[in-house]
Amino acid sequence: MKPYEHKVQYYETDAMGIVHHSNYIRWFEEARCDLLEQMGFGYRKMEEEGVIIPVLSVACTYKTMVRFEDTVVILPSITEFNGLKFKVTYEIRDAKTNELRTTGESTHCFLSRNYAPIRLKKEYPHIYTLFNNMMSTN
Amino acid sequence: MKPYEHKVQYYETDAMGIVHHSNYIRWFEEARCDLLEQMGFGYRKMEEEGVIIPVLSVACTYKTMVRFEDTVVILPSITEFNGLKFKVTYEIRDAKTNELRTTGESTHCFLSRNYAPIRLKKEYPHIYTLFNNMMSTN
Amino acid sequence: MKPYEHKVQYYETDAMGIVHHSNYIRWFEEARCDLLEQMGFGYRKMEEEGVIIPVLSVACTYKTMVRFEDTVVILPSITEFNGLKFKVTYEIRDAKTNELRTTGESTHCFLSRNYAPIRLKKEYPHIYTLFNNMMSTN
Amino acid sequence: MKPYEHKVQYYETDAMGIVHHSNYIRWFEEARCDLLEQMGFGYRKMEEEGVIIPVLSVACTYKTMVRFEDTVVILPSITEFNGLKFKVTYEIRDAKTNELRTTGESTHCFLSRNYAPIRLKKEYPHIYTLFNNMMSTN
Repeated sequence: MKPYEHKVQYYETDAMGIVHHSNYIRWFEEARCDLLEQMGFGYRKMEEEGVIIPVLSVACTYKTMVRFEDTVVILPSITEFNGLKFKVTYEIRDAKTNELRTTGESTHCFLSRNYAPIRLKKEYPHIYTLFNNMMSTN
Repeated sequence: MKPYEHKVQYYETDAMGIVHHSNYIRWFEEARCDLLEQMGFGYRKMEEEGVIIPVLSVACTYKTMVRFEDTVVILPSITEFNGLKFKVTYEIRDAKTNELRTTGESTHCFLSRNYAPIRLKKEYPHIYTLFNNMMSTN
Repeated sequence: MKPYEHKVQYYETDAMGIVHHSNYIRWFEEARCDLLEQMGFGYRKMEEEGVIIPVLSVACTYKTMVRFEDTVVILPSITEFNGLKFKVTYEIRDAKTNELRTTGESTHCFLSRNYAPIRLKKEYPHIYTLFNNMMSTN
Repeated sequence: MKPYEHKVQYYETDAMGIVHHSNYIRWFEEARCDLLEQMGFGYRKMEEEGVIIPVLSVACTYKTMVRFEDTVVILPSITEFNGLKFKVTYEIRDAKTNELRTTGESTHCFLSRNYAPIRLKKEYPHIYTLFNNMMSTN
């Protein structure tokens, strides 16, 4: 998978002069959506097929500060998947120095448009296979 | 109408140490939605009846800086309305000193859920009356 | 302590029709800053005295969905404090039904303006006392 | 100048299913900062030399909707400059179809770190020349 890059924007900083901590949660989402696209099934396509993927939990540990105009690389990996839920873990590193900036994880389930749980293996076997294949690449 | 107050949050600041300029556009929305609620027809209710109100344009002039923990008062007025479109003008003032911080305006139309234009007078006469009454209070 | 209320804004929703998950992290901050103010030492005052309080980690578990125009109550508690770091835990509940929406926590340290660690007990005993008193109220 | 591209993120959408209108103001900033970098004087460098560039006004007209996963091209041009202030005008177009999505403009001044007005020609002639050259390329 191609690593995902994000260049820090001014509107992402706060009065402390660094990136506001809530934005890393958004960058996780950027990298997660990019991963889905690279897997061949972008999130818009997912929603069009009737599958929504809400966030069940998110966690983030801030190691070193990120500043305006820095470019970071965000590395997501699907580390758990059972057909009902999955977990993604993330590393954010400085694009130039490779220094670790942040680690984190998010968990997700699969719901239908009216928020009912979906069993991927039965209802969307092609999506099930995609996620399963990702697991074996770790 | 009761004036709308907003207390500045840390995540609304940027590295310049003041509120990021994009947030005033969001505060306009906060005050506009509050105005609709005070008119007796909040925006959620509007959407539930099948009316969406997209933004056609927005403009904002920044006079004096707003900082973290300041409280501002946002004063919206419906200054134009013809059953198809309306304009809201805004003043943002410091809650303590009343000093003018920002002025602005936004224009809007009324659309159905599938983005078709709505003629309020014919299709939603009760909403038409609400907006019309607001015009006469200016 | 007075509970902290937040009314959901339209700009906080996403295409799923509910509040975007990153915003809860911002609401934690709102409630945390409100707590500091209620303790008698708001965060602006803290920064003016030369103390900044960065976020070391954050975690959030999403239980039930929050929608536009809902009002939530955010209940922060300082649950760990040792003079160098502290932890805040949060509950977000619907203001009307009291239903649990989200739980979470964040950890923080105290730094000087040039990002050097601060020992509160020695350097800012009055702030140390404030935090210590909060611990005994749990 | 190389055109600036932005891929729409999920956190930029709202419950209307399209990009929230406040985000275009942020995209203007992205493109403006990119333009400064292409001119050879990125905004971080500007701040490091002691020049801050606040926003005096912003305006945006929304023509057609932008959705999640769309890529837009943002074209900024410096259309006015007198050594004290400048104006940037923007066009946002769909990257695939070239259809016009949004037009807008922002005005700015140059301030020192303590918010005093700067006369570029006298105090920062090298930055004055950069902006002046941009004017002649229109």
